[in-house]
Amino acid sequence: MGMESGVSNARPSRQRRGKGKSPKPRKDLKWIPLGGMGEIGKNVSVLQYGDEMVVIDCGLKFPEEEMLGIDLVIPDVSFLEENRDKIKGIFITHGHEDHIGALPFVLPKLDVPVYGTRLTLGLIKNKLGEVCPRYRPKFNEISAGDSVTLGSFTVRAIAVCHSIPDGLAYAVKTPVGTVVHTGDFKLDNQPIDGRTTDYGAFAELGREGVLLMLSDSTNVEREGFTPSERTVGRTLEQLFRLHKDKRIVIATFASNLHRAQQVFNIAMRYNRKVALVGRSMLAYVELARELGYVNAPEDLFVPAQEADRMSPNRVVVLTTGSQGEPFSGLVLMSKGEHRQIRLGQRDLVIISATPIPGNEKLVSRTINMLFSCGCEVVYERDQAIHVSGHASREELKMMISLIKPKCFAPVHGEYRHLVRHAQLARDLGVPSKEVFVLSNGDVLTLTSQGKGRVDGRVQAGAIMVDGLAMGEFQGSLLKERRELALDGVLAVSVLLGQDGSVRDVKMESRGFLHSQEAKDLYGELERAVIRALESCPSGDESAKTAIRKRMREVLSRYSRGYPSIIPLINRL
Amino acid sequence: MGMESGVSNARPSRQRRGKGKSPKPRKDLKWIPLGGMGEIGKNVSVLQYGDEMVVIDCGLKFPEEEMLGIDLVIPDVSFLEENRDKIKGIFITHGHEDHIGALPFVLPKLDVPVYGTRLTLGLIKNKLGEVCPRYRPKFNEISAGDSVTLGSFTVRAIAVCHSIPDGLAYAVKTPVGTVVHTGDFKLDNQPIDGRTTDYGAFAELGREGVLLMLSDSTNVEREGFTPSERTVGRTLEQLFRLHKDKRIVIATFASNLHRAQQVFNIAMRYNRKVALVGRSMLAYVELARELGYVNAPEDLFVPAQEADRMSPNRVVVLTTGSQGEPFSGLVLMSKGEHRQIRLGQRDLVIISATPIPGNEKLVSRTINMLFSCGCEVVYERDQAIHVSGHASREELKMMISLIKPKCFAPVHGEYRHLVRHAQLARDLGVPSKEVFVLSNGDVLTLTSQGKGRVDGRVQAGAIMVDGLAMGEFQGSLLKERRELALDGVLAVSVLLGQDGSVRDVKMESRGFLHSQEAKDLYGELERAVIRALESCPSGDESAKTAIRKRMREVLSRYSRGYPSIIPLINRL
Repeated sequence: MGMESGVSNARPSRQRRGKGKSPKPRKDLKWIPLGGMGEIGKNVSVLQYGDEMVVIDCGLKFPEEEMLGIDLVIPDVSFLEENRDKIKGIFITHGHEDHIGALPFVLPKLDVPVYGTRLTLGLIKNKLGEVCPRYRPKFNEISAGDSVTLGSFTVRAIAVCHSIPDGLAYAVKTPVGTVVHTGDFKLDNQPIDGRTTDYGAFAELGREGVLLMLSDSTNVEREGFTPSERTVGRTLEQLFRLHKDKRIVIATFASNLHRAQQVFNIAMRYNRKVALVGRSMLAYVELARELGYVNAPEDLFVPAQEADRMSPNRVVVLTTGSQGEPFSGLVLMSKGEHRQIRLGQRDLVIISATPIPGNEKLVSRTINMLFSCGCEVVYERDQAIHVSGHASREELKMMISLIKPKCFAPVHGEYRHLVRHAQLARDLGVPSKEVFVLSNGDVLTLTSQGKGRVDGRVQAGAIMVDGLAMGEFQGSLLKERRELALDGVLAVSVLLGQDGSVRDVKMESRGFLHSQEAKDLYGELERAVIRALESCPSGDESAKTAIRKRMREVLSRYSRGYPSIIPLINRL
Repeated sequence: MGMESGVSNARPSRQRRGKGKSPKPRKDLKWIPLGGMGEIGKNVSVLQYGDEMVVIDCGLKFPEEEMLGIDLVIPDVSFLEENRDKIKGIFITHGHEDHIGALPFVLPKLDVPVYGTRLTLGLIKNKLGEVCPRYRPKFNEISAGDSVTLGSFTVRAIAVCHSIPDGLAYAVKTPVGTVVHTGDFKLDNQPIDGRTTDYGAFAELGREGVLLMLSDSTNVEREGFTPSERTVGRTLEQLFRLHKDKRIVIATFASNLHRAQQVFNIAMRYNRKVALVGRSMLAYVELARELGYVNAPEDLFVPAQEADRMSPNRVVVLTTGSQGEPFSGLVLMSKGEHRQIRLGQRDLVIISATPIPGNEKLVSRTINMLFSCGCEVVYERDQAIHVSGHASREELKMMISLIKPKCFAPVHGEYRHLVRHAQLARDLGVPSKEVFVLSNGDVLTLTSQGKGRVDGRVQAGAIMVDGLAMGEFQGSLLKERRELALDGVLAVSVLLGQDGSVRDVKMESRGFLHSQEAKDLYGELERAVIRALESCPSGDESAKTAIRKRMREVLSRYSRGYPSIIPLINRL
């Protein structure tokens, strides 16, 4: 039963003996998440049957605060690179960064076909153009309802609602059984584009029998149902009605094109023009209009520079910056630094978003700045001006009830979300032993008897990308940056004579005491350097160690923290 | 009318002419906030009448994320230092850090009397002991109901409820009129210690006439009433009843001694011992028991090391770490790094707190870690296990209605809180012109006719304190640390011969490419240094500038960000 793959094939201790009743397929099915477990971000997972693989999603993650200087984080997909030849295709659920954002870094290496809806592929194309403009991707456009057969897999695309249009779930039929991946979803019964989640398809799969269900865990902590996107439109319309004399500035996620569509509709009803602000807002709306996902006549739009000249009640500004991102449209406006739009008492600013965890302070500062411009500001605490794109508990329950899987694995969540979603599945009758909370790199092996087991691991992890084009970023550099950030740096260069005597010492610091303030300390540090070199062996490395040690002794009398010390030795 | 004070005395343009009806006091009254305006933290303000001043509170603020390596922030009180001789006393409202935390840095310089309740003074004493153990403060213990006359001021202490016991508001009678400072308050009608906010005193002041009201703005965004602290006790009791077989671990703020008291009461009823964990939890409970603010028999407590040996259902662990603070009790437990307490499936962990803005990620990570220990975790999203210590909108309205001030200035809030609290006061009938949103350092001048005007400014600002005992921290250092954090540092030492020729170049980096990875780049950088020195004037500073410029040119071809470059020049 040896498998030609990178998957560890050690016989698991937890394996139960097969009863041997039904005609067994010759190979097991494996599901391997390489990202998205215990984190919201860098979603990517693999289904493997024998020598064949399909991949679902390939996203990035935004860096944590302590990842100093890091621009973004992508999954370690060494496992995919090693198994390149087995990959039949990458199926993308929808066009959010955490599902497509790693493709520009990964796809040129794999060069395998990519499947997705028109909008999703359009967004990927734009991203590839920025990072690797010469790469020609193998795109395959699919729509909800389509089925694609690749080797032993038949992949069916199913419509789901989400906060970006044209989202998909996937049902993958394999010789061992069917795997359903919900993608990111909510059950919006009045979606803006009329494209509801395809309950019928899920119910049918449920009737036929589903071996494994993989489901979005983001909002498992929220009771009830996530409200329809349409409710936001109602609130916005009320605000337009109440503030007929004001200019209205709305900040939201550029990718939430349903929200943009609602703004356009309301603007037309209230006889206002729309000015789009922010690079990504312009890019998303342009693409969506081009591809027919947003309906808005050309003459609805005015350039941002006109929005400041027009009568306030004749214009709406739709802008990026709802997360308080430092150089976004709204933030520049709030600081009076935006080139086209100047905010003041005639403006009503609506922040149509909630802060993503970690962004609370940035958003809060932006709101304070907006107040100080004299605008009226409508934000989260006040009103129903934002809804989530993810299913709450009642919707998650409904999805499990429709699909009735034999095995269940929560995806797309921090650890506590996965645990609570797993508990929800057990509460709804999925056998406790067939509910799996995995870590990135775990291998879940499934048998056609509807049994699963976690056996083996493959390489998985995070790769940090910073501005450097030269190579991958190393964790040790991050540790050094953290030390520099806390206490600064002190560089010391020593000139040694041929007899080993100290001929010159120069010191300079950054982020530590300025030399002019600390004449005494510098004198003492210099004497410490000389002392260090008097009693130390001749090699440069041991001299450096001695210098660091002696300098630290002096610093410990002045300071709680130490700067990083960089000794450099020139010899005559 | 010249005033002997540091207050700018420029005649204001906005001043209205006095009608001259009532016998005017010879001097105006000034209120000057030096901290706490547009921020939650470092509360300190001054009342000045002629040559006499009283100060209210003197707190610190915790650093923002981007204040790298900074431990805490204190207000710039140069104005108080310059006017030391005029200060009759500092009146402290309550013992939270944002009201007392700057005293150890400020009080030894001012050496003026401090007034506060027993608990508040006890907490200040502990803090002084840590920072300046030799300083002997001039403490004056007061209780709610007491009045203190100091020159032209009569200061009355009034009981208010808050999330730390023995909080006070102050009514300061002056020849110009009465100023009421609410302190931090809520209107808890069933407080744990039975000490309700003294409605009668505020009503009486309202009847007599209040010139200026200064009121806590923290929760102005919350509708309704803040629930009683007692409601938390009810929830905790339910959890004790539901989880009789589990060990219960409760994390909360060490200063919330009412909460601690409730835990002790419930523990006794459920026949459990209490183990206290975390340095500040031990310190607060010890002080509060010593001073009689907490009632708990000695034999209720067990050392933390015993809590791991006892039967789970016989013990409660009360710990710090509710904000996910890196080295706190709960966080160490969640990582399996706590020396005495090891968490597992037999534990129920209750996080009896909400994240302070900015701490959301730390708290979220801690919860994920707790889930991965296998504990059951009860946290904010779930249940009523925490209440705020600050008044919500209905309480704020009630306070304004009781006090009926002629002038109103919101305090203790970010800018948007101040603006919304100001609007609330206007809605309740305070004349729009007499409602003042101030910035730190603004001078509000009040006349006995009940008129105010903002005229002049005094020095105010933030002083960052890091581990360095040597001096005050400079903003430019912070900028340097931010650069180091983003891109690291590259130190280069050059040995120049007497003829100006380059005899040796050494380079080393931190937080930037490791030298072993970048042999080519280092070679190129070395050639850039040599080129720089060939064509540059002889001075060290111009040589350094040339080196930086040439090295940056090389780096720009490899990288989007530049490391900080520190050139050091040794000459023969």
